[in-house]
Amino acid sequence: MKDSDNNFGWKRKLHEIIYEADTPEGKWFDLILFAVIILSVLLVMLESVAEFDAKYHRELLALEWVVTIFFTIEYIARVVCIRKPTSYIFSFYGIIDFLSTIPLYVSYIFAGSQVLLAVRALRLLRIFRILKLVQFIGEASQLKSALKASRAKIFVFIYAVLILSVILGTIMYMIEGDEAGFTSIPRSIYWTIVTLTTVGFGDITPQTTLGQLIATIIMVLGYGIIAVPTGIVTVEYGRQKREGTASKEPVVHLNTQSCPDCAVGGHRDGAEFCFNCGARL
Amino acid sequence: MKDSDNNFGWKRKLHEIIYEADTPEGKWFDLILFAVIILSVLLVMLESVAEFDAKYHRELLALEWVVTIFFTIEYIARVVCIRKPTSYIFSFYGIIDFLSTIPLYVSYIFAGSQVLLAVRALRLLRIFRILKLVQFIGEASQLKSALKASRAKIFVFIYAVLILSVILGTIMYMIEGDEAGFTSIPRSIYWTIVTLTTVGFGDITPQTTLGQLIATIIMVLGYGIIAVPTGIVTVEYGRQKREGTASKEPVVHLNTQSCPDCAVGGHRDGAEFCFNCGARL
Amino acid sequence: MKDSDNNFGWKRKLHEIIYEADTPEGKWFDLILFAVIILSVLLVMLESVAEFDAKYHRELLALEWVVTIFFTIEYIARVVCIRKPTSYIFSFYGIIDFLSTIPLYVSYIFAGSQVLLAVRALRLLRIFRILKLVQFIGEASQLKSALKASRAKIFVFIYAVLILSVILGTIMYMIEGDEAGFTSIPRSIYWTIVTLTTVGFGDITPQTTLGQLIATIIMVLGYGIIAVPTGIVTVEYGRQKREGTASKEPVVHLNTQSCPDCAVGGHRDGAEFCFNCGARL
Amino acid sequence: MKDSDNNFGWKRKLHEIIYEADTPEGKWFDLILFAVIILSVLLVMLESVAEFDAKYHRELLALEWVVTIFFTIEYIARVVCIRKPTSYIFSFYGIIDFLSTIPLYVSYIFAGSQVLLAVRALRLLRIFRILKLVQFIGEASQLKSALKASRAKIFVFIYAVLILSVILGTIMYMIEGDEAGFTSIPRSIYWTIVTLTTVGFGDITPQTTLGQLIATIIMVLGYGIIAVPTGIVTVEYGRQKREGTASKEPVVHLNTQSCPDCAVGGHRDGAEFCFNCGARL
Repeated sequence: MKDSDNNFGWKRKLHEIIYEADTPEGKWFDLILFAVIILSVLLVMLESVAEFDAKYHRELLALEWVVTIFFTIEYIARVVCIRKPTSYIFSFYGIIDFLSTIPLYVSYIFAGSQVLLAVRALRLLRIFRILKLVQFIGEASQLKSALKASRAKIFVFIYAVLILSVILGTIMYMIEGDEAGFTSIPRSIYWTIVTLTTVGFGDITPQTTLGQLIATIIMVLGYGIIAVPTGIVTVEYGRQKREGTASKEPVVHLNTQSCPDCAVGGHRDGAEFCFNCGARL
Repeated sequence: MKDSDNNFGWKRKLHEIIYEADTPEGKWFDLILFAVIILSVLLVMLESVAEFDAKYHRELLALEWVVTIFFTIEYIARVVCIRKPTSYIFSFYGIIDFLSTIPLYVSYIFAGSQVLLAVRALRLLRIFRILKLVQFIGEASQLKSALKASRAKIFVFIYAVLILSVILGTIMYMIEGDEAGFTSIPRSIYWTIVTLTTVGFGDITPQTTLGQLIATIIMVLGYGIIAVPTGIVTVEYGRQKREGTASKEPVVHLNTQSCPDCAVGGHRDGAEFCFNCGARL
Repeated sequence: MKDSDNNFGWKRKLHEIIYEADTPEGKWFDLILFAVIILSVLLVMLESVAEFDAKYHRELLALEWVVTIFFTIEYIARVVCIRKPTSYIFSFYGIIDFLSTIPLYVSYIFAGSQVLLAVRALRLLRIFRILKLVQFIGEASQLKSALKASRAKIFVFIYAVLILSVILGTIMYMIEGDEAGFTSIPRSIYWTIVTLTTVGFGDITPQTTLGQLIATIIMVLGYGIIAVPTGIVTVEYGRQKREGTASKEPVVHLNTQSCPDCAVGGHRDGAEFCFNCGARL
Repeated sequence: MKDSDNNFGWKRKLHEIIYEADTPEGKWFDLILFAVIILSVLLVMLESVAEFDAKYHRELLALEWVVTIFFTIEYIARVVCIRKPTSYIFSFYGIIDFLSTIPLYVSYIFAGSQVLLAVRALRLLRIFRILKLVQFIGEASQLKSALKASRAKIFVFIYAVLILSVILGTIMYMIEGDEAGFTSIPRSIYWTIVTLTTVGFGDITPQTTLGQLIATIIMVLGYGIIAVPTGIVTVEYGRQKREGTASKEPVVHLNTQSCPDCAVGGHRDGAEFCFNCGARL
């Protein structure tokens, strides 16, 4: 009994370090993990720079191994210290953790640079774990609810912009034709969106006077249309802000604890049981 | 008498399916129509891609026939099941439906790729019928009244921008001249609008120091001017929103029923007679 | 005495037609003048299009003569029918009217295409008379007072943007050097403003990795900075709008009458004497 | 004793002229300093224009000497007339003043154009002293507190934009590859930010249909995302404005006096002792 209890205590300790950020050890673990993720993303980037890769291929591979071993140990630790491993393994972050650990192993099984490339990019998915940290900043919450409130309106807006682009793109295709780069309707629609959003690459530009006249209309339209999403977000965000300060509802702070049983996070301060599965925290 | 009544019942049923969206059949019909319209637009686009058309010309033509036949049947059904066919035929959507049905037939009468192209593009007009669906989303109504309220101000704004563009464009034409691409005043005005709206294609760029100085002023102007429509729309939309929530007037939901007599849509829930011609719905 | 009175009555009538827009004749005169100004601007534009000018030089010249004769008659009429001609001749619009009348006459005195060009562009100044019409639309008044209220803040903003551009431009010049097109600091500052205002011509682009990194920072900065003028104008305009509806001060409509003595316009409805010189209207 | 007092009076006078702007002499000194700083910045710019430098090298060098001597005298005067010279010498502006004085002297010690260039650019740092003047305009204070209030939210926003750019950039790199200019992931991320911020240089553009489709999504995203910082700044600035007018707290004007002992500025009107070190002003 004591051995089991001991074992459980060891797992509990590990769980606290890996899954939570309340203890100093937990905070340090999160910080190190953050650094390793950034490093792994930087490695993927630097490997893509041909000259850099040619020069420092050995060093990059060595660091790749360091990152892979760290991720492997972390993944095993996460699986071991949770009571129901399957709830972690098949969770969103569980799958991402697995996918961002395997690239180097996979590259030894399937040779070929194209496969390697796609597989290394999976490492980027880890960024989502960093994004998770943002949730706890809290600053983003009013912004997020503002965006959520204006979602439907922005959808209608994008829908209208797309239909406008299809119509204007087809008109430009008929006016300009192949010489000016408007070789097909999809390409012409691509140009219309490039112009309407005021990006303006300049790889395709109207050459005829009529085409330039319609381009002018598209530009002024795009210049004015940008007022719509800005207006929506500003008004919604202003409302969220006012309501937030007006209601003065008791704000409950969520901590970084996560249930040792079901791995669900975001428990409120002082909570003793998991709100999801009822297990003791 | 019974026969006529029967006949009328059959027409009434068809009218409900085609013109309204209250019954499951009506909803299914709208959904299928939506899909066929999207397909017809995609066909026009894909035909314009030379490589794709060369490869799959047969398949595209076959699908074109499917779409045309569907539109033909739909058009005949719409004419048959309405009490006063002329009120549909000469309505806005009646003309669009007709124009988007005939392209393939016309292409057999008038040969020539240029005619074919213009005629196929008529298919795009069908998109407006999809746009009609947006009206019933309701989300867009406050946005629309905000845009309507700020219409006069935005018109004054665009007017001022255009006059500014004419003056600045002429100045740039006199400074830069032909070498830099400012070959005529209209072209120079085109460049000014490209710059003022922050699109910046880069096909024409100032080469002289003075030209670049004025270009700088135009850019900073354009960068600041964008604040005006944004400010107008934001303030108007904020007002619409506040008034909308303040007034708390009984909101009447409009349904998708349309009068079997005069084809006018947008009747309020529970309405038993057409608000336009008084016919029983 | 009667003759003088008669003469005065004839002048008074002409004054009403030319300077005011209250009578049907006055409105018609303004409309025709508007059309002739637009025509004169279009002529300047079309003459600058080399191919068009080569083809239709005769027709353009003929129309130029029509416009010039119209402007000449109008100018003489304006001088004749006012009591104190000097108050018109040396007023802002008096000078513009004179300058936009003389080009064709001047072109016969001083030959040379360059002079002709500059002289024809003076015709554009007439546009300001059209702009004057905008003042009476009234829609623009709240917008104008909002822009006036935020003038000082926008000045500080532009000042900060310019200093930022000078610093960032110099840094980019030191990093990129001649090969990438950053041939001098002024040119480098020009590029920085092109990038900061999100215009992005693409005639000069950073080639080094460090340059691209700083360009990225400039772009994100510019993307964020645009929020500042937008925020200022929106808040000021919202305040103007709220105060405008709150105060409910008696709105006095200004009419298009102008003093026959001193040519000052914008008198209030029902005014019998000029608010500027006290002459009977 | 009298001599020391006399000496002190002379220093006090100089201190008032150089460090403060309350007396006419102080205002004149600030104005002249402002002009010389602008001149010195213009000199750095003009020297970078190869043709201009070749023509007027002598004149530029002469003016450079004038500026350098002025700055040298000013620097010595600033050190002499303050009671504790070290508090000025090691302050932010003290270091900038020193660095902007030495370039010409340094250029005689270390030859080589590259060193000269970097050293001359230090002159630009002087601009910060001009920026200091902005603080006293007061117009910028509400704007600054609005920006400070929205700082955290804008940070989260930029963070999200950067992660989005990394992910989208990597996807574009995998789709487009080397031919279209997407030679590495960092370069691809650079392109993504160029597109997302609607700058759109056009030096790198997607060539494949899939790449253009994703580019379209990035553009629409960027077009919409710009609403977020605008919304934040507008709402925060509106709040600052409303609170500012609502609170009606006694506004204390800060003058341009600076402590003769510790060189700290921004004392309130009527203050007789330095708020920082307690020395008599």
